[in-house]
Amino acid sequence: MSRRNRRSNTGAEKSLEQLPVKQLRNPFPPIEVLSPEALEAIHDGSMRILEDTGLQIVNDRARALMVEHGAKIDPGTGYVCMDRALVMEKIASVPSEFTLHARNPIYNSVYGGNHINFSTVASPPNASDLDHGRRSGNFEDYSRFLKLGQIFNVIGLFSGYPVEPTDLPAHTRHLDAYLGFTTLSEKPWHCYSLGNGKVEDAIEMIKLARQIDDETLKKQPSILTVVNTNSPLKVDGPMLDGLMLMAEYNQPVVVTPFTLAGAMCPVTLGGALAQQNAEALGVIAITQMVSPGAPAMYGGFTSNVDMKTGAPAFGTPEYARAVLAGGQLSRKYAIPYRTSNVNAANAPDAQSAWESEMSLWSAVMAHGNLIKHSGGWLEGGLCASFEKFILDMEMVQMMVETLKPITVTEEDLALEAIKEVGAGGHHFGTSHTMSRYKDAFYKPLVADWSNFETWEETGSKTADQRANTIFKELLASYQKPAIDPAVEESLTAYVEKRRSEIKVQW
Amino acid sequence: MSRRNRRSNTGAEKSLEQLPVKQLRNPFPPIEVLSPEALEAIHDGSMRILEDTGLQIVNDRARALMVEHGAKIDPGTGYVCMDRALVMEKIASVPSEFTLHARNPIYNSVYGGNHINFSTVASPPNASDLDHGRRSGNFEDYSRFLKLGQIFNVIGLFSGYPVEPTDLPAHTRHLDAYLGFTTLSEKPWHCYSLGNGKVEDAIEMIKLARQIDDETLKKQPSILTVVNTNSPLKVDGPMLDGLMLMAEYNQPVVVTPFTLAGAMCPVTLGGALAQQNAEALGVIAITQMVSPGAPAMYGGFTSNVDMKTGAPAFGTPEYARAVLAGGQLSRKYAIPYRTSNVNAANAPDAQSAWESEMSLWSAVMAHGNLIKHSGGWLEGGLCASFEKFILDMEMVQMMVETLKPITVTEEDLALEAIKEVGAGGHHFGTSHTMSRYKDAFYKPLVADWSNFETWEETGSKTADQRANTIFKELLASYQKPAIDPAVEESLTAYVEKRRSEIKVQW
Repeated sequence: MSRRNRRSNTGAEKSLEQLPVKQLRNPFPPIEVLSPEALEAIHDGSMRILEDTGLQIVNDRARALMVEHGAKIDPGTGYVCMDRALVMEKIASVPSEFTLHARNPIYNSVYGGNHINFSTVASPPNASDLDHGRRSGNFEDYSRFLKLGQIFNVIGLFSGYPVEPTDLPAHTRHLDAYLGFTTLSEKPWHCYSLGNGKVEDAIEMIKLARQIDDETLKKQPSILTVVNTNSPLKVDGPMLDGLMLMAEYNQPVVVTPFTLAGAMCPVTLGGALAQQNAEALGVIAITQMVSPGAPAMYGGFTSNVDMKTGAPAFGTPEYARAVLAGGQLSRKYAIPYRTSNVNAANAPDAQSAWESEMSLWSAVMAHGNLIKHSGGWLEGGLCASFEKFILDMEMVQMMVETLKPITVTEEDLALEAIKEVGAGGHHFGTSHTMSRYKDAFYKPLVADWSNFETWEETGSKTADQRANTIFKELLASYQKPAIDPAVEESLTAYVEKRRSEIKVQW
Repeated sequence: MSRRNRRSNTGAEKSLEQLPVKQLRNPFPPIEVLSPEALEAIHDGSMRILEDTGLQIVNDRARALMVEHGAKIDPGTGYVCMDRALVMEKIASVPSEFTLHARNPIYNSVYGGNHINFSTVASPPNASDLDHGRRSGNFEDYSRFLKLGQIFNVIGLFSGYPVEPTDLPAHTRHLDAYLGFTTLSEKPWHCYSLGNGKVEDAIEMIKLARQIDDETLKKQPSILTVVNTNSPLKVDGPMLDGLMLMAEYNQPVVVTPFTLAGAMCPVTLGGALAQQNAEALGVIAITQMVSPGAPAMYGGFTSNVDMKTGAPAFGTPEYARAVLAGGQLSRKYAIPYRTSNVNAANAPDAQSAWESEMSLWSAVMAHGNLIKHSGGWLEGGLCASFEKFILDMEMVQMMVETLKPITVTEEDLALEAIKEVGAGGHHFGTSHTMSRYKDAFYKPLVADWSNFETWEETGSKTADQRANTIFKELLASYQKPAIDPAVEESLTAYVEKRRSEIKVQW
């Protein structure tokens, strides 16, 4: 709350009327889609999966660690089985809340309880805009999304590359990406948990950016990663290497099973959620074996597929219900909850909006603490759209404003103004209105409320076309956030040193 | 529940996969945006408005009736004031739940408690589609919307003319409109409460259509009206004539103040809601003075205006919060609640979808019993769009499916299938999937989940373009519902008789 109305020294405040930087909380109780019995049945089912079937852990060090802590190897499959007492004992040490620290402390933010944080789209291989269509992700588009993410106050962090910069060499791409995060933005960011190298570089660079040492970093989580299980039931080796290193440094690991009902898990939501729960808790347990008390998050991503084609679907009724159920599960274990703003549309059209709204309402009403992919996601995650980014900022800002309580003071009631205006008059010019109208309502970013005739005269522009104009104006107004030149130099030097080392090692 | 899976003998079932006819209920508790103190402050404020300022009642019979029941005329303004004891005593006799009866009893539906009913858009002067653009409403478009409303099972009633048939003479237009309701559809419908004549004709025609007498009609509410106050604080004469006649016949009256914050009421939500509450309860009280126990509904329509232009806005954060607050107020008085699916977009684009979703989620989570304008509303209600109708049907169906509980039987958990598939496999071909996949998920009406390449090959169609194809296919497949030829003849004869009488009287 202390951050309310404090302004960043960056962004496009002059031209952009937007919500202030603020740690958002959800004042409403969550919507609960599972009865207590159904919640317990899913928990029990997930424990039976971990006990009787187990997880395929493709990493010797992780397997050894799990066995050391009491897990068993199934002699037939080689999968690692954990009994429920072990799982519950391990996950009990996950903190129910943690703070993620940013280069600029006004962006420090809390994960857990009823706190909400929105992050930009992560990891699409393609980018698009209405002017130039769809193309493979590149570093210029990557940088433009970072700028937009820095500009909008409702964006709390980057939870992955907003688009993959495929024009950069794969083995050193992460260095350029991290340099972008640390210099084009001041907000917290993410490293891919793919082996030790990329995590180590991220840790070194966040230490340089924040000018802190290992000890402080361990006390102040500053970088986040997402570990997706290779559902069903498989956890890949490089991801586990990264996870273990992140846990050693006490940095938050978001464990998100990739459970699309009917494809990577059962077609029934009950079965899909039991498998999600087994995979999430099983892998979260590993973080605690490495480092008891290391921050972790429970990721829910269960959706369904189109049973005619196998194509993934998002923002569906099944998705919304799974998101709400995932919130109940995460609360049962008192682990912060990650969910998403997703859709399967191929264009920033009405479908993209209704699927996003289904995702956002269920994410917020599930008490999602991290709502990932909140700006720009299209095509089930295969494309980052600049227009969709702007539409999403409108939808996210509207959700934020919807969570405001309605105050009812004597002044709010305005009984004198009502009497003064009387029957059949209007309130446009009353002193009660005049003293409040400027800030009375949410000011839209893209919505056009003009009448049809005015709208037609100004070109009959649909929301995606208006968003196209807006994202370009905002990019033109972007200002790089302040950074100590010595810090920036140290980051650049680190990147160049590592670039040459990696080249040598490769 | 008895109606679940029962099928109408009409519609387009062969080509359209849709949800069954069903009395929907909301299993979740409502979202409460007002603290108990804020709720009480709004109630108290509204009572002070009715006591100290009063309502301008432009109808001598209604004024006399109100005075007879204990209301007082303010000597300065002539407004009618009621003290809170009188208001609360009168509204106490409003039934907390009633059933609206249809020509085909499978469409009888309950209003109150956690029941939800969706109705089509009502009263726009214009219609539009992508082929022919925007035009003044006409009887052909009117009839086409009735057909679409009959086809979709999630539509429970018509709550007004889906578009005004402006090509018909104004003085007999209602007769053609009613004949359309009673013959092109079997669902409950609405008459405009504009003087006695139009209400009397509606009552005669619903008696003919349902083949019932006055006594049965009084026991079985069969036709609904909406009374909008002429906010602020004014209630027009012809509306009150209609209201009193409807109440005499025990037919439901929905009282909806037209309170746009900053224009017809204070700019503060607290003040806007206090005025909404005063107008709604004050007018509902009149229905009970006419006929204690007559069904009535509490209508919430509070939104905000664009303070730069005065243009109305819908589906905004302020709108969503007012809808949620309206639900709390209606529950306080145990009166069924009417709300809406509205937006201010000028095209069936992303804005129309996100504003509709904001409206739908808040309406459903407010425990709205009648969600009006659920199919086709555009331009803040000035246009009925055929494409938006189809987009709305998708959004409404998705809300309906989201309200399903998640069952978790042992079979749902699918632990054997999970073990059988093992790590890294897939569930597409398992017997668990194969026996369930056909009905496992909601089947979309307009959403396109194909990949980008397929979508591009098939013409890169956005959701509104796909909706254009769908509404035309559905209209082509429409079949007129069965009706006893003698009943249809009696309706036609009544219309022709009245048409000649009205001509004579005019």
